[in-house]
Amino acid sequence: MTLSDKGGMTFSSHMAAALAEARAAGARGEVPVGAVVVSPLGEVVSAAGNRTRELSDPTAHAEVLALRAACAAAGSERLPGHVLYVTLEPCPMCAAAISAARIARLVFGAADPKSGGVLQGPLIFGHPQCHHVPEVIDGIAAGESAALLRDFFGLRRDG
Amino acid sequence: MTLSDKGGMTFSSHMAAALAEARAAGARGEVPVGAVVVSPLGEVVSAAGNRTRELSDPTAHAEVLALRAACAAAGSERLPGHVLYVTLEPCPMCAAAISAARIARLVFGAADPKSGGVLQGPLIFGHPQCHHVPEVIDGIAAGESAALLRDFFGLRRDG
Repeated sequence: MTLSDKGGMTFSSHMAAALAEARAAGARGEVPVGAVVVSPLGEVVSAAGNRTRELSDPTAHAEVLALRAACAAAGSERLPGHVLYVTLEPCPMCAAAISAARIARLVFGAADPKSGGVLQGPLIFGHPQCHHVPEVIDGIAAGESAALLRDFFGLRRDG
Repeated sequence: MTLSDKGGMTFSSHMAAALAEARAAGARGEVPVGAVVVSPLGEVVSAAGNRTRELSDPTAHAEVLALRAACAAAGSERLPGHVLYVTLEPCPMCAAAISAARIARLVFGAADPKSGGVLQGPLIFGHPQCHHVPEVIDGIAAGESAALLRDFFGLRRDG
């Protein structure tokens, strides 16, 4: 009920913002993944795309950068009630960071059989060592998210 | 052979540096965990303790801070041939970051049944979604590492 009350519009606009971050990352030569963090009041409090190459930082995935910016703005290492939107299934590092930040709900686009950590592999949210399990909603704008990645890696193979 | 060639002295001194970082973190009111990154030439290229509270950053674990500093210094998101020493078994986030940074060898102290991600729970290095598996050596200075944590949480419970 909560989900349908929130409506497709909200999902769509926040995922659209994440997709815009993903496209901007791709234009910078980074793997095109984008994320936004939304407050309990529905405000976007941070938005980021991958910057691992630019920053020489293997932890600079979109989700980690968005979490760090939102936490810095909040002055807290925890973001209760917040929602994180990301265009691709988080990797194990990002999934564990999402849990550590106490994100209430994770909404993501395409699944990532190669590197994902939520629906496959380590199943980060499925062990007693995970002390906070967010609600997870997957498959939102998955086609567009996957197409961005496919185009990016296709172009790089050809280029 | 490689390990015994490296000798106990090297393990001890690098883990001693990590323990010093852990103690300094505890003195700052942070969970006392410390880490150092050592280059293929045996030089300490970064050292860090937990700063999650100080920085309001749930990703500011000792390992992540040490990896980010070493990568920034190297101008690369990968650290082939490097060794990461950490006083406690890495959590899933840090284990995945260690893999992403292509760390060659992970040496850690105490196991962490509550929050660890290497020997238990998600077993980060044990899935096809983990694209680089470091050599893992555990139990180095485990007693001292565990005592630091026990003292810290004991003091905090009493304090």
